[in-house]
Parts: sequence; C-alpha cells; structure tokens
Amino acid sequence: MSGYTVAILGATGAVGTRLIQQLEQSTIPVSKIKLLASYRSAGKKLQFKGQEVTVEEAKPESFEGVDLVLASAGGAVSKKLLPEAVKRGAVCVDNTSAFRMDEDVPLVVPEVNEAALYNHRGIIANPNCSTIQMMVALEPIRKAFGLKQIIVSTYQAASGAGQSALNELYAEAQDYLDGKDMKADIFPTKGDKEHYPLAFNLLPQIDVLEDNLYSHEEWKMIHETKKIMLGDMNSPEIKVTATCVRVPVPISHGESVYIEVADKSATTEKIQQLIREAPGAVLQDDPDHQVYPQPINAVGSRDTFVGRIRPDLENEGAFNMWVVSDNLLKGAAWNTVQIAERLVADDLVSVPAAE
Amino acid sequence: MSGYTVAILGATGAVGTRLIQQLEQSTIPVSKIKLLASYRSAGKKLQFKGQEVTVEEAKPESFEGVDLVLASAGGAVSKKLLPEAVKRGAVCVDNTSAFRMDEDVPLVVPEVNEAALYNHRGIIANPNCSTIQMMVALEPIRKAFGLKQIIVSTYQAASGAGQSALNELYAEAQDYLDGKDMKADIFPTKGDKEHYPLAFNLLPQIDVLEDNLYSHEEWKMIHETKKIMLGDMNSPEIKVTATCVRVPVPISHGESVYIEVADKSATTEKIQQLIREAPGAVLQDDPDHQVYPQPINAVGSRDTFVGRIRPDLENEGAFNMWVVSDNLLKGAAWNTVQIAERLVADDLVSVPAAE
Repeated sequence: MSGYTVAILGATGAVGTRLIQQLEQSTIPVSKIKLLASYRSAGKKLQFKGQEVTVEEAKPESFEGVDLVLASAGGAVSKKLLPEAVKRGAVCVDNTSAFRMDEDVPLVVPEVNEAALYNHRGIIANPNCSTIQMMVALEPIRKAFGLKQIIVSTYQAASGAGQSALNELYAEAQDYLDGKDMKADIFPTKGDKEHYPLAFNLLPQIDVLEDNLYSHEEWKMIHETKKIMLGDMNSPEIKVTATCVRVPVPISHGESVYIEVADKSATTEKIQQLIREAPGAVLQDDPDHQVYPQPINAVGSRDTFVGRIRPDLENEGAFNMWVVSDNLLKGAAWNTVQIAERLVADDLVSVPAAE
Repeated sequence: MSGYTVAILGATGAVGTRLIQQLEQSTIPVSKIKLLASYRSAGKKLQFKGQEVTVEEAKPESFEGVDLVLASAGGAVSKKLLPEAVKRGAVCVDNTSAFRMDEDVPLVVPEVNEAALYNHRGIIANPNCSTIQMMVALEPIRKAFGLKQIIVSTYQAASGAGQSALNELYAEAQDYLDGKDMKADIFPTKGDKEHYPLAFNLLPQIDVLEDNLYSHEEWKMIHETKKIMLGDMNSPEIKVTATCVRVPVPISHGESVYIEVADKSATTEKIQQLIREAPGAVLQDDPDHQVYPQPINAVGSRDTFVGRIRPDLENEGAFNMWVVSDNLLKGAAWNTVQIAERLVADDLVSVPAAE
C-alpha cells in the first residue's frame, strides 16, 4: 500500500488540532486526509502538511474508502459513527470513553500493552489522559518489582475539558485580576447541573459524581489501570484508588502517585534507573538542583516526566512520586497516533471478518 | 486583670494583618496593643479596634510590660526575639517553625491537644498551615476509630509564602494572559537557588528539599502530625507520608487525604457524622448536589471544610477525603489567636519560674 486514507473525526477541537499535528509528524504514510467535524465546523479550512483541507460534516458515508479513523469528537459521536466506519472497513482509534470498557475493544498504551492490538475488531480505545501518563510511569516499576497498590491524587489541567473550557479559565482569570465576578458555564463538567469558577480555585470533581461517591474520572483511573496493566477491568491484583482534582493550569496534568511494590528490594535509585530506561518516560529528579516535572515545561512534549521519587520512610516497599505529561499529547493526540503507528507497523489496519 | 498588653510581632505581613483582625474579634480583653515589625515598617500606621496604632521596630526592650506576644515575623526573628520576650515575662504564641520541635514547647491545635498548653515554659508553637487543617479533619476520626496511616497530597495556596509571593502570583498571571514572559523571584521558596513561575503551573516543592528527598514542608506534615496527635514527633503509632505541591491559588489550601483506620466498623456515614459534630470542622459533602469544599468558598472562614469522603473500594478500613481551609486563618492567624484565647481562659498567661 502506498499510503492510507486517514480521517480525523473532531478535527477542530483542542485534541483534534493536535491529532493533525501528531499525524503530520508521524511515520504513517498518508495518501489522503479527511477532516471531519460537526455541521457547525463544516466548511472551515485547515492545513495538513502544507495543503489546505476543507472540514466536512461527519456522516456515516464520510467513511467510505477510509482506512484509519482517529476520533476525538465526544463519546456520543463515537458511539454513533464509529460502528458505521467499521462497517465500511475502517479501523478506528477512539479517544473518547465510548468503547473503553467493551470486552472486545483493546484499551492501549503502547508502552504497556501493545500486544492487545492484535485482538482488535475494528475499534481500539485510547485511555483517559490521567490514566495514560500514570501507566507510562508505573509499567516499568510493575514489570521489575510488581505493584500491590496505587493511590493517586491528580492535578488536572483545564484543557482536559476541551478548548472552550480552556477559554473559560483564561476569561475567569482576567476577570479575577480585574476585580470582577467570574462567570462559570463549563467547569467542573459541562454535563452537570452546577458550575463553579476554576481560575484561582480547585475543583475536586472531574466528570460526574457517581452513586459509589467516586467521580467518573476517578472510576476511569481505577478500572482503566486494571484493564491496561492486567487485561481485566475488575482485577483485584493491583488495588487502585484515585482522587481527581481540576486545577487552574491550562495544559499538562500533574499526579502525586503513591505505590506499594511487591518486591521489597526496590529502591529509589533502582526506580530512577527504570524510569531513565523506560520508553516514553523522562526522569527529572535532581533535588539538589531543584529539578522536578512542571506542567509549563511539559507542554508540547510527547514524553511523561517523572520526579520526586522517594521512599515512604515508614512503610517498606512504598514510594511517592510526581508525574507530569501534556494531557493533549501523550494523554490524547499522541497516544492515539502512536497506536495508529503501531497498527501500521504491525500490519493491523484492517477489520477482521466477523466470526 | 482588666486586660492584657498584647504585642503582635510581624504586624504588617499577610498573617500579621490577620492576627490584628482575629485579635479584634477574639474574646481576649486587650488593654494595650503593640504592633511590632522590622525597622523598614516602623512608623507605619495601622488600626486596632478603630484606634490608630503606630508600628514600632521590634527590639528586646519592646516586650517590657507585655503579657502576650503573637509572632509571625519569620523563624529567624522569633529565634532571636521570643526568648527576650519570655525573659521579660511575656507568653509567646509563635506562628513560625523556630521552636515547633523543641521538647518543652507545646505544638497546639486547640481542637486536638489543648491540654499541652499546661506544660508551656513561655513559648507555644503554632503548627504549619497544612498540618493544622488536616488535624482538625482527622482528630475526630482518630478518636473514634484509631488511625494507622495517613497519605496526604497537598494543593497549597500562594499566600502560604507571604504577601510578596501572592503579589508575584498575580503579576505572573497578568503577564501570562498578556502573552509576556513570567518573572519568578520567590517561588518555589525564597531561600532556595532556583525560582520558577507559579501562575498556570504546579510546583512540587514547598520549602527546601532535604537529604532524605522530602521537602521541609513534607517533613513538617509528618513530624508535626505525630507531635500533635501522639505527643512524640517520631512516634511510629501512625504512619504518615506527604507530597506537598504549590498551586496557583491565592488563599486556602486543599488536601487529598487518604487514611487507614484501625477499627474496621468505620463507614462513610459515621465519618460524616463525626465531622458534622467536630469543633472547627464543617461537612460539605453532598455529591448529588455537587457540594464539596472549594478554596474560593473557604477564604475568610475560621473553619476547616471536609468533603468527598468515600471508602477505598478495595482496601477495607481505608478512606479518601478532600479538606480545605483558609491557610492564613485556621492555618495561621486564627489558630494563633485561638491558642491565646485558651491561654487566657485557662489562666496560663504567665511564664513559669525556671526549675
């Protein structure tokens, strides 16, 4: 094949524009690009590798002749359109949560479970942003020492809720600095009843709060971690709990991660060495020179930055660390394109016949 | 006694101005007020209960005739001047870290260990801001169910580093919104070599990083918790570990607190009821109506707000929660004045004779 016809669904959003960039910089040979969005964005002109491309309204027919779909237009759109794309022979990498927990849908962080791609039936799910960066940091540790427990507190950036949410943060911040009241229409989450300002504030709610008292974002971190690392969203093998908090940062999530490993021979130095050698991870851990991951330094990078690694001084085999990554790249667009790259490299860009 | 002569040391700072307010609103009968600061602030006019008071330069002689000192002028100033005040018969409540770990200095959160005041020898230490609010939230749980372990991740406000740091956050935020470079001279901590912007960023360093890889702020949370709850800064009875992160919020710290209790009969409902009844604590925990603590709602209140209480779904007897309080009030000025109120009520405003 001389190249693939690739469609980007949701091409005009915060993740969509980065999907275009990441695809431009990828190793995937693209013979034709289709940029799809809602009817409101249809007609808009965007660039792909220096060529102007007109955004088209996404419909089932849009996927005729498409080999590969990179989707980030919201769960409802994916639910409706991706089965149509698969029916027409396209393989879809979906950045929404629509199919993540379906048993026959691989949920993939290439550094962790690339092999799961071989079982795809047309749709591959990209995990939640906060889960992905934690996986990149913890998988080398899990492989070397085993993981018994993960307790994570997140510091999540505004852009995780989309471009309009990011704009709301900036508008609120300017109003606050001008001594005006802040207007909140989006945060904590568009789909809920109450809205609160994020600028100069903290919101301990990401996505809706569920009956078990966890937010859906926290639920995702728990169950996606188990599915990615253990192949079973309910595996008891690693205990996981999460507290997810939105912070007034535009791009790049921070995570305070506490782990307990199985093999007590683990040391800070050994974990640092594992991170140094791990694909997709960069060690930024030099306390003497005040070197540690910061969101403003992670923006625009595909890597996950890990630092402040240190042992719990009273609990043998337990460690604290601080993990930062660009939530729009490794947390979304880059991981999606990276999955597509692996599909191409492993010759998996075809929908297997139904059994 | 018809009233006390009270001196506020460091009267012009972010905490100092709040010490004046909290003292004005307290039950302490004040017959005379002295406002002390560095020579740079001497001559400045401030108000106390509607009367103009001229700020004086703090010197050993300033404490002649003073009954009670409320100090928040930095550790070095407290180290130098408070022994001079005690020598002259004044009882000192110190908001700095100068004496917190001295064996004969009580470290007091009145809701937890008021009785320790009876052992004072002239100086009582006010704990670190991030420790205090966690104590208010956890002491009722410890009393009812016992605590085995605390794992805390903090989201600490800029004002914890003082008024000039708060001004730096605002200036950086405006520069960022104007598309200009941000200038950093204070954060992560004035006393260290490198400085990084806090606006729209996260800094996983509060105070200096020490040889054991923990920041001094993290060290304080660990050892102050043990001293306040257990009377011994090195007690192994409760395991404590902490990750402290500065966030771009002006006032009020957030804390994601994970606890393991000893008595497995603990439930979310029982813990909620304990918080409801606890002195100094307010339960804000109604997921159905998106009610949880937020920094912007805590500013100006003496209370500690607790919400998002929920069980670890895989670890019996473990719970997550979210705790917010005004770091300048309960975290500093109010706890200091509250200690002074108890000293007055318990007739402890006198320096015991040396043995």
